[in-house]
Amino acid sequence: MPDYGKSAGEILARIRAHKPVVHSITNYVVMNSTANVLLAMGASPIMAHALEEIEEVVSIANALVVNIGTLSKSWIESMRSACRVAADLGKPFVLDPVGSGATKLRTSTARNLIETALPTVIRGNASEILSLSAQGAKTRGVDSINSMEDAIEAARAIAASLGTIIAVTGERDLVTDGKRSLIITGGHPLLGYVTGTGCAATVIIAAFLAEEKDPMISTAAALAFFGLAGERAAAQAPTPGSFWIRVVDELYAITPKELETAARITEA
Amino acid sequence: MPDYGKSAGEILARIRAHKPVVHSITNYVVMNSTANVLLAMGASPIMAHALEEIEEVVSIANALVVNIGTLSKSWIESMRSACRVAADLGKPFVLDPVGSGATKLRTSTARNLIETALPTVIRGNASEILSLSAQGAKTRGVDSINSMEDAIEAARAIAASLGTIIAVTGERDLVTDGKRSLIITGGHPLLGYVTGTGCAATVIIAAFLAEEKDPMISTAAALAFFGLAGERAAAQAPTPGSFWIRVVDELYAITPKELETAARITEA
Amino acid sequence: MPDYGKSAGEILARIRAHKPVVHSITNYVVMNSTANVLLAMGASPIMAHALEEIEEVVSIANALVVNIGTLSKSWIESMRSACRVAADLGKPFVLDPVGSGATKLRTSTARNLIETALPTVIRGNASEILSLSAQGAKTRGVDSINSMEDAIEAARAIAASLGTIIAVTGERDLVTDGKRSLIITGGHPLLGYVTGTGCAATVIIAAFLAEEKDPMISTAAALAFFGLAGERAAAQAPTPGSFWIRVVDELYAITPKELETAARITEA
Repeated sequence: MPDYGKSAGEILARIRAHKPVVHSITNYVVMNSTANVLLAMGASPIMAHALEEIEEVVSIANALVVNIGTLSKSWIESMRSACRVAADLGKPFVLDPVGSGATKLRTSTARNLIETALPTVIRGNASEILSLSAQGAKTRGVDSINSMEDAIEAARAIAASLGTIIAVTGERDLVTDGKRSLIITGGHPLLGYVTGTGCAATVIIAAFLAEEKDPMISTAAALAFFGLAGERAAAQAPTPGSFWIRVVDELYAITPKELETAARITEA
Repeated sequence: MPDYGKSAGEILARIRAHKPVVHSITNYVVMNSTANVLLAMGASPIMAHALEEIEEVVSIANALVVNIGTLSKSWIESMRSACRVAADLGKPFVLDPVGSGATKLRTSTARNLIETALPTVIRGNASEILSLSAQGAKTRGVDSINSMEDAIEAARAIAASLGTIIAVTGERDLVTDGKRSLIITGGHPLLGYVTGTGCAATVIIAAFLAEEKDPMISTAAALAFFGLAGERAAAQAPTPGSFWIRVVDELYAITPKELETAARITEA
Repeated sequence: MPDYGKSAGEILARIRAHKPVVHSITNYVVMNSTANVLLAMGASPIMAHALEEIEEVVSIANALVVNIGTLSKSWIESMRSACRVAADLGKPFVLDPVGSGATKLRTSTARNLIETALPTVIRGNASEILSLSAQGAKTRGVDSINSMEDAIEAARAIAASLGTIIAVTGERDLVTDGKRSLIITGGHPLLGYVTGTGCAATVIIAAFLAEEKDPMISTAAALAFFGLAGERAAAQAPTPGSFWIRVVDELYAITPKELETAARITEA
C-alpha cells in the first residue's frame, strides 16, 4: 500500500510553495467562504462566470471547480463552456452536484455537465452521487444505504460506469475509481452545522489536484487535510460560529509534516 | 395570557428534533450568513432562485423566505412564483421587504408580492413596514414615529388592512395581527453594526413558523430567541466581528429550557 | 507638509457621527464582508444593482463603489449608469478594477467605465493599475516593477494621463494624483490570506471620500486606517480566520485619536 500520509504532506507542501490558481464557478452562498478556504490553505482563488471570459480564466487556472448550488440558465451555459475548455486543455476539474436528485433542474444539469466533459473528480453526499446515474437513482434510494459497505458498492458502480473518480463525503469519506476504494476518517459532526462545508471539501480537492495528477491520491489527501482541520478546530471551539473560524485557521496552520502524521487514509 | 416563554422553548425543541427545511430566495449579501443562522439553530437551509425549480423546492420546504434586498427582474418573477406555490400548498412564508420605501422598484415589488399571495408574516423595520400601504407611506413618515405607541398603532393599522401578521424589529420588537400586539425585548445595539441581522430575524421566524402554526406565537418566539442570542453574545464580545460569531454560537447553544426562562414577550 | 494623521482622525470622527451611505455595485464574493466592514467602521452600506433603481440609490448615497470582480453583461450596464449618475450629481466614486489585465472582458470594462465617467479614485494592485493604460500595459509588465520607486513612477504616469487619483495597494500603499505622491505603511501579510481585503480597502476609501472632499487626503487616511486595523488584528490573531474577525473588530474599536497618532503617511 502506498504511503498516502506521506503523499498528502508532500502535496500540501507543493500547494504552499506554488499557490495554484483555482477557478470556481460556484453558488452564491459559498463564494466568500470557499475563497477564504483556498487562500488560508495557500492556494489562489479566482471566481468568474461570464461566458465572455471563461476560456481565458480556465487557461490561467491550474484547476477548475463547477458547483451547481444556485443555478440559473446563463450560469449553466458558462459551466458547460468551462468544463469543455478544461477538458481540452487537460486541466483537472471537480464537479460538485449540489442538490442533484432534489430537483429535475439540478439532476439534469449535473448529468448534462458530466456528458459535456468527464470531470476528474465528482464530490457529493450519498444522495447526490446516487442521483447521477439513472440506474442508481432508480434501483436504490438513499434510504436503502444502510452501511458503509452499501455506500462503497453503490459509489463504486457509478465510478466504474462513468469512468472517473467519485468522492462521497459524510461521517466517513470514500474515494473510488470503481476498482480501488479509499476510506478517509476525520472531521467532526459540527461540520454539519456550517454552510458550504461540502463545497469547501470540493475546492480543497481541486487545489490538491492542481499539484498531484493521480486523482485517487490527491482526492484522498485533500479529504484527510480537511478532516484534520475539522478535528483540530472542534477541539478548540464547541459551537459552529467559532468552530468554522478555527477550521479556516487550521487550514493555514497545519504543516505538511502534521498532515503526513495525522492523515487517516485506508484501503477499503 | 398564554405562556409565550413556554411555547418558545417547545417550538425550539421541535426545530432541533425535526430540522425543518427553510427555502430562501434572498439577497446576495446575506445568503451565507442566513444559511449559517439556520444551520446553527438546527434548521435546514436551501437556496434556489431558478424559476424552473421553484415549485419543486417550495414543495420540499417546510417554510419559505422571500427577501428583496438585491433585486433584479428575473428574480422578482421567481419570487412571485414561490409565493404563489407556497400559498397554494399552505406552506408558511415570510416576506422581508428590504429597502421598501427607499426606491420605487423595491416599494412596488414588495406591494406586488403581497398582492400576489398574502405572506404569513411580513418582517421589516419601521420605514419598510410603513411603505407597504399607500396610506401609511402618505400620511405619516418614519420621522413622525416618535414613540413605541406610535409604532404599534401604525403597524396595527397596516396588519389589519392587509389581514396578516406584521413584525417590526428595532430597539424593541413588535408583532401584531391588527388586533393583538406583542412586544419582545432583548437584542443589543451591536446588531446594528453587522449586516443582515434583520434578514437573520426573518429566517428564524420562518423556521419557527415551520413548527408552530399560530404565527403570533411563533413569530414572537423567534424574535425572543434571536434577541436572547444577541444579548448573550454581547456579554462575551464587545465588537461586531467577534460579536456576530458569538451570536451564531448562541443560536446553537441556547437550550429550549433557557429560552423558556429568558424569553421576554409581553402583550402591548 | 499637512498633518495627515490629524486629518485622518478628524475624518473618522465625522464618519462615526454622520454614518455616510456608501452604495456598492460589487462582486458576489465580497458583498457580505465589505458590508460588514462599512458597518463596523460606522458607515451605512447599501447594495443595489438593478438598472431600474440605480439612479435613486446613487442619489441617496454619499459615495459609490464600482467593483468589477464578478462581471456579467447586465451588471456592466448598471455600473455604467451608476458612474454617470454619480458624476452628474457630483458624488465621489471609487473604481476597483479587480482582475483588469487578466482577461479582455475585465480590462475593457475597466477602461470603458473610466471613459464613461472619471472616477474620483481608482484603487487596485500594481498589475490592475498598469493594465488601465494601453501604454502601461504595453511598455512595462508587472514583473518589471522591481522597486517602490518604479511603482510610484508608473502609477504617477497613469494618474497624470487619466487626470484622477490612483491608489496602488500592496506591501506599502501609494496614493498619487500624478504630481504629489503619498506612501502609507501599515497592514500585515495575513491580509493576503483573506479574500476581499483589497475590496475592503476600496469601500473604506469611499466612506472617507464621503466626509472629506480632498481625495488625496481622504484616500491616504482610509488606507492608514485599514492598515492600522490590520496591524492591531495581527498582534492578536496569527491565523487568517481569526485575524479577519479581529480586523472587523478593530475597524469598530479604533478611535479617531488612535488613528491620528498611529497613521503613517509620508510624502514620496
